Parts: sequence; structure tokens; C-alpha cells
Amino acid sequence: METRVALEREAGLERRPGRDLCEVGDLDLAETCALLAAARGLLPLAAGEGPRGVLALRGAVILRIFAEPSTRTRVSFEVAAARLGAQLIDFSADAASSAAKGETELDALRNLDAMGFDAAIVRDRRDGHARWLSGQLRARIINAGDGVNEHPTQALLDALTILEAFGRDAVPGAMRGLRVAICGDLRHGRVGRSNLRLLRALGAEVVLAGPGELAPAALAAAEGVDLAPDLDSALRGAHVAMMLRIQRERLGAEVSLPELASEAAYHAAWGLTSARMGLLDPAGVVLHPGPMNRGVEISDAVADGPRSRIFRQVTLGVAVRMAVLARACGVSLETCLKELSQ
Amino acid sequence: METRVALEREAGLERRPGRDLCEVGDLDLAETCALLAAARGLLPLAAGEGPRGVLALRGAVILRIFAEPSTRTRVSFEVAAARLGAQLIDFSADAASSAAKGETELDALRNLDAMGFDAAIVRDRRDGHARWLSGQLRARIINAGDGVNEHPTQALLDALTILEAFGRDAVPGAMRGLRVAICGDLRHGRVGRSNLRLLRALGAEVVLAGPGELAPAALAAAEGVDLAPDLDSALRGAHVAMMLRIQRERLGAEVSLPELASEAAYHAAWGLTSARMGLLDPAGVVLHPGPMNRGVEISDAVADGPRSRIFRQVTLGVAVRMAVLARACGVSLETCLKELSQ
Amino acid sequence: METRVALEREAGLERRPGRDLCEVGDLDLAETCALLAAARGLLPLAAGEGPRGVLALRGAVILRIFAEPSTRTRVSFEVAAARLGAQLIDFSADAASSAAKGETELDALRNLDAMGFDAAIVRDRRDGHARWLSGQLRARIINAGDGVNEHPTQALLDALTILEAFGRDAVPGAMRGLRVAICGDLRHGRVGRSNLRLLRALGAEVVLAGPGELAPAALAAAEGVDLAPDLDSALRGAHVAMMLRIQRERLGAEVSLPELASEAAYHAAWGLTSARMGLLDPAGVVLHPGPMNRGVEISDAVADGPRSRIFRQVTLGVAVRMAVLARACGVSLETCLKELSQ
Repeated sequence: METRVALEREAGLERRPGRDLCEVGDLDLAETCALLAAARGLLPLAAGEGPRGVLALRGAVILRIFAEPSTRTRVSFEVAAARLGAQLIDFSADAASSAAKGETELDALRNLDAMGFDAAIVRDRRDGHARWLSGQLRARIINAGDGVNEHPTQALLDALTILEAFGRDAVPGAMRGLRVAICGDLRHGRVGRSNLRLLRALGAEVVLAGPGELAPAALAAAEGVDLAPDLDSALRGAHVAMMLRIQRERLGAEVSLPELASEAAYHAAWGLTSARMGLLDPAGVVLHPGPMNRGVEISDAVADGPRSRIFRQVTLGVAVRMAVLARACGVSLETCLKELSQ
Repeated sequence: METRVALEREAGLERRPGRDLCEVGDLDLAETCALLAAARGLLPLAAGEGPRGVLALRGAVILRIFAEPSTRTRVSFEVAAARLGAQLIDFSADAASSAAKGETELDALRNLDAMGFDAAIVRDRRDGHARWLSGQLRARIINAGDGVNEHPTQALLDALTILEAFGRDAVPGAMRGLRVAICGDLRHGRVGRSNLRLLRALGAEVVLAGPGELAPAALAAAEGVDLAPDLDSALRGAHVAMMLRIQRERLGAEVSLPELASEAAYHAAWGLTSARMGLLDPAGVVLHPGPMNRGVEISDAVADGPRSRIFRQVTLGVAVRMAVLARACGVSLETCLKELSQ
Repeated sequence: METRVALEREAGLERRPGRDLCEVGDLDLAETCALLAAARGLLPLAAGEGPRGVLALRGAVILRIFAEPSTRTRVSFEVAAARLGAQLIDFSADAASSAAKGETELDALRNLDAMGFDAAIVRDRRDGHARWLSGQLRARIINAGDGVNEHPTQALLDALTILEAFGRDAVPGAMRGLRVAICGDLRHGRVGRSNLRLLRALGAEVVLAGPGELAPAALAAAEGVDLAPDLDSALRGAHVAMMLRIQRERLGAEVSLPELASEAAYHAAWGLTSARMGLLDPAGVVLHPGPMNRGVEISDAVADGPRSRIFRQVTLGVAVRMAVLARACGVSLETCLKELSQ
């Protein structure tokens, strides 16, 4: 914190509180609702339905530091930036260059930070890395996934998808009466963690479910939510089934649980099938953050079925990230929407 | 097709016919002429002669999926996009990321497509891949080379180069009376295939020539053009000598033809030399899609000589791709040109 | 030269003298001062303090050919371009593609050049490569480091840092009365070479210092500056201590000098420590082009101390590169500043 203030003082900048997005808790409820409402307003732009040329972030420069492979999150932010006229610049690609020259990681980052980036999007294997960076750099930090901690923009896009599916506005308590089942590998699930925090803040009831050690009771207890004993219990009456990816490389390895012995075994016990869709609320929908393992945690019929919102999540994700980028760059969401309406 | 319509319906978009460019036949004659005329109008911008800042595609976002290495085509599209204010985003770079996570190729592509890209530029080893994609995705497809099938923007730039060289306007029948010899490795030649279709549609007489199996009689027969027995016959009286690259790795390998035994042997039999230039029509010019193998299919003197249009092709290629991108993004060519004239 | 004129004639372009920046000597004194003054004017934009959206180079397209790894120089140019609305396009990434197809390097470059790039930023291991390229291509050349020859934008940003630190305007003779000590590995130091030329042109007194063969007497003699026998002598009374990176891989190898035997030995003999800071002029400051080897050529306390301008150099570097890009693109610095003031 001290470093950051010093850097800002040196650069002649005031501290700009409240524009980092390291965890969903960085947004209070009012901000969350405003951001989701803005994202919905930006949706025509995100969906490629024009008008193009609403470049509210023209001239903004955003650093992307992705230390983990990623296609959808990487590209989604890139599209969001491009639609608003901001430019993403990668650091990850040649991180090795400065290290080979004996520079510390922090010096390399502070050097980049001195180039005046408006924001930095960060993805890293280390839990809490985004928060740590926000104490080191002047640029606003957007967490695109840090270890098993959080992935807040994913939770925001999931929330927007749910609101849209049930025709609700983004207001406090918007999800009251909705039951969301988050199912699958929760232990490695920053998506699950961010989601259960955000959805509950909006009033949803959340239930977790997953095989054995992959759905730790400690997580459910710490967050104060129910852990269902099996998939059917979780899905019964749910308005949203959010299926999390199981890493194929975990299956068939030295595991004690029979349901992890093979893809087929996992699918039988923990896969969302057409038969299980009958357990949901009649209006219930299916979400998946992707990438999907078809035939493992989800069947083809469900993935491509009429109640799947899986590709819609992707479109809404661009809109959410546009709003998040605007906020990080200090451009009011009203400004973005006003440009759009002209 | 069904998928595409479904996707468009889901996204609230109307079907926008006629903006794919998978093969040269996707353009009817009137469209071909309009596109070539627009490209000529955009030429000052493409040649870096200003005025800059004609950003008719500002805010447009275009996906680039190049599964084959490429410098000139890749960069040419990138420059064309940048000159019009559109942003290219690459998928190829981390195609491995989603595959490693167990996602199907089609799911990965549909995910990207859900991000609202205006168009996708595709290069792939699979014949007909562009057309297949156009049935799967909402984004308009621009084929930048698919297997041995087609490479339509190359043919368009070649056509524009020929029109310019002979002072002709882009109108139906513009190439009447012009004889074009396409020479070299035709078997692997999507460039040759796209060219002979397009140039003939504009009224040119096309003759093919190449060594043995590399110039299959079946192709000539299927397309209804002549196959010359040797290079001299093809060049005699030609207004355009279009030399295709022979892959060096084919030479000297286990081949039956003596003319493929070495670079020197190939050059002697199939190389365009200063001596052979005398066979052309007095106004005849030389084209080569690049990259050139100097001293193999073309001599230094010819490549750098006054009748070479080889580097001019590259400049015109940027202009053609600007027009193609505008069309794919649904921006009328008139709009581009009007912005330019202001 | 002949090629260039020919290419320009072919492209219908006039020769535009004076926009290359291969060496600091490409700028005369008046141009140097104007460029530094413009960079200072652009500083709010470079520092991310807005207003954003001053896109004086919108639609400009700039080629980046980096044959050497680089993070800070690469990104600094990219940020500078983005802040002015220009687009950088990389060639380096797939240089192998055309080579694998048998194309010569010059043909590949001339092909790219025919795409109408406004400028090309070049980094290469070969001494004098930038100048050579400027004779081959139509695009204006900006040298981002060529072998051990020059790195002119680094020298310009160092000059701007010094002017700012001492509250001086960018006018002829601006550095009169300032003593600058350039210390460390000078033999491989294109940074040192560009700096001593530029700083002396602005009136500074320059002294060099470095261990044994790494600070060749021939360089000092050729440039007509003093070579100090040790670090303390160089620093005594200096207004600027410019510390150059020693390549760690050189230390501890088969070297004759005891001061190169280890990092600790180098630090003792040639490291800038808090104790040695007392030798400087009371107003003296510390520069380092980065990346820093902490504990080798510079101590933590000095690097992070109040007299360090090391991260400030980075910020000013973006501003300098904005001015350099504008000049290369033929946009007057006045135009950039005027847009900024609106």
C-alpha cells in the first residue's frame, strides 16, 4: 500500500479508490447492480449488433498479464477492450526476457506500471495474487482468476445470465427465491467461490454438490451454504444448474472414489443428463463456465438443448467485461451508455 | 446451416446473405467489379499515402484463425484492418489451450463466435474448411486459403494488379483479349484455382502449365482451360505470366521427372528468365503470389525487372483486403470511399 | 539508396527526408530540442493521466521487427503507439515462416514494406542494421537498438529525465555545467554510446567508467571523453550517475579481473551504493536503463531511494517514443500537442 501511494504521489496522481476488481467483494451491492445494469445496456455492442464505433475507452491502454493458459477469458477481455477502443498489451508472452536478464518480477512489473497503463488484467496460479499486485502497482487491477481464490468477472457474467433468464432487473435482492446448484469440482473452483459469494449477495439460495474431496465440506461451512449429498439432491427444484468442469486428467488416476474411476462413471454419478433435467424447476436453466467436457459433466443433449444458456454466457461475458474495463479506466458507465444511445 | 440460423435467431440477428467469401464464386460478377473498384479507390490509404484516419470499421472486431503458418497474408489482413480501424484478434496462438482442457474444436469456435465477432478470417489445411465454418458460425467467413481449394483474396488482388497494369476499369469483360499463363505447381495451388476462376469470369483467356503431375490434366479439364505442354508454349503471347512457387522440399527428392531433380534443372525447364520474357506480349507483365524462390521458378533479373508487378501485388493486396473486410462487416464500400474523399 | 528512391518512385511517393532515427546524429540540435519539448508536452498522456483519446496517429500502421528479446522497449513503443491511436504489427513472431519457404530476408522485408507501413521499429543484433534497412525500405526506420551501435530513443529518454531532474528546458546548451558519469559495461553498450553523443550535444560533460576491457579506452578516445580509472573518480561531483547493466552471465566465468569474479566482487568495485551516493553532487540523481541487477551494479537502497529516477525514465520513455513515432509518421509535433490541449 505504501509503495502504491508513493508511486501515485511520484506520478502526480490521486489515489482512485474502488476501481480494482480482485474479488467480488470489491463491489458493494449498489456497485454490483449498477455494473450489471450497464453491462446489459452494452449488450448490443457486445453481441456485434452495432452500432459499432462507441469507443468510450479510446486511447486507453490495458496490460494483460496471463501466467496461465486461457482462451475464452483472454479473448473475451480483448474483444471487450476492442469494442470500446481500448488497446490490450501482453506481458506474459516474453516474461522470460527480463527474468533471463536478472531482473526481479516486481521490478519488471513496476517498470511496466510506470508506462502509465490504465488497468492490468491478471491471471495467475497464486491465490490472492491480484490483491497483492494491487498493493504494488498504480494501474487498477482486474482479477481474471488467481489460483483457487476468485474469478469475479465470471461470477458477474453468470449473474447477468441468470437475471436475463428469469427476466429480473439488476437490483438488490434480484435473485430472491432462486435456487442455484453449483456442481462438480469445487475444490479447484475459483468460479464456484466467486459465484456463491456474488449470487448470495443478490439474494439467491446456493447449494453446492460434488464428488468427495472435490466438494470440501469446509468450503460450504466457511461460506455458510448447504452441501448436497449427491447431484440429484442438488438439482431438485433448482432454477439454475451451474456445472463445473472436471479435469479429465483427474479421472482414472489413483482415486479412491468409484465415481472418479472413468469418464463414464463420472457422467453416471455427476453428469447433467436429460433425465436429470427433469429434477430442475420447470423454468430452470443450465450454465457452464466452459470449456465443457461433453459426456463427462454434461451430456450433448443438455449442452445443446433449449434450456442451455452456455453460449449466452459467453456473449454476456463480453458485455460484463466492457463494463468492468470502463470502471477500471475511470470512465463512468453512464458515459458508455450515453455514447451508445447516440 | 440449421445451426447458423439457430444461432442468429438466438442472437436476435437477421441472416445477412452474401458477405462470406469462401470462394471467388461467392461474389457474382457485379459484386466482383464493385469490390475491385472500391479497392482501387482505397489504394491511397493502403499504400500509406494518407489521408490516415479513415476508420470506417472503427470498433469492428475480427477473429483470425490461422492454422497454417503465413506471414504475408496474415500481415496483409492485419494492416488492412488497422487502416480501417478494425481490430484483429488471434485464436491460433493458443488453440492448444482449450484442446488440452478437453473441449471440442467446434465448441471452442462457437464460444469465440458467441463473443460477437463481425467476421472471421480463416486459413486451414482442410479443403472446404471455410465453407464448413460458414455453416457453423454467425460471424462472416473470409477464406485466406483452405487446403488446395481456394484463396479468393489472392485472386482478387491478382485481378486488380492485372487491371491496373493494362489500364482497364473493373467492369464485366474487363479482361477480354488478355491471355494469362499460370505456371508452376498447380496441384497444390489454391492460388491457381481461385485465379483461373476469377480471371475467366472477367473475360481473360487462361492457360496452365507445369511439370508433370504438378499440373494435373484433370484440373485443366474440369475447369475447361488449356494445359500447355511446356513453359514456352504457355508464355508465348501471354499478357500475364503468373509464376507459382515450387516447394523446394519437393526438388531433388524421389521424383521421376528430370526437371524436378534440382533447383537448376527446374529453373532451366520451368523458370521465368529474361530470355523467356521475350516470349510474352510486348506489354506483358509478371506476377508471383510470393514467397519467391529466386533462381528456381523466377530469376533475379525478372523478379526485380521493370515488368515485374510482384511488389505492387502486395500493395494492392492490402487495398483488396480492406474492401473485403468492409463487405464482411456489412459496411458499404461507398461508405468507405466517401469517408476517404472527405 | 537507389532501391529506396526506386521504391518511392514506384509507389508515387516523394522522398521524405529527416524522419529516420537510426542514430542520435539523425536529429540535428534544433530537432532534438523540439522533440524533447514535445515529449514533455505529451507527458500527461504518457503517464496515463489523460485526457485519453488524443489519437493524432489514428490509422497509422507501424511494423515492429524485433530480432532480439525485449520487454521494456517493446512494450514502451506499443504503449506509445496505442496512446496516439497507431497500430503496431509484429514481424518477428513468424520470421521463420517465409524463411522456411525459401524467401530471402530482404524479399520478406520488401514485401512487408509494400504493405504501406508508415514506419518500422527495428531491433537487431547486427551493428548498423537500422541504417542498412533505411536504404532498403520506404517506411521510416526507428532504431530500437542495433548490436553495439546505438539505441537513440533510450538516449532521448535519458536526456529528458536529466532535463526534468534539473528543471531545465530543452534548448541548445541545456546541459551546460552538468557532469554525467556513465558506468559499467560500456563495451556492449549501445545505450552508453548513444547517450554520450546526445548528452554532449546538449552541453553535458560526460565521463565513462567501467571494469577493464568492458570500458575500452578506444571508445573514450574515439568519442573524445574521459575514462575514469575507477567508479569513485567517475562519480565524484557528478550530477547524474547512469549505471549500466552488467550481464550476470559474464561474472564468475573465465575472467582475469578479480572484480568480475562474482556478483559480490563486482558490487564492491563497481556497484552504486548508498555510501558512494555521497560522492555525487548534492543534487545528483541516478539513472539506469534497466533491467537492473540489484546487488550487482546497484544496491536496493539506491534503486529505491529518493534520488533514483529509474522508474521515471520509463514513464518519460513512453512520451519520447510518442514524439518519435509522430515524427516518423510525418505528423508534426505541434499537431500532437494541439490535439492534447483541446
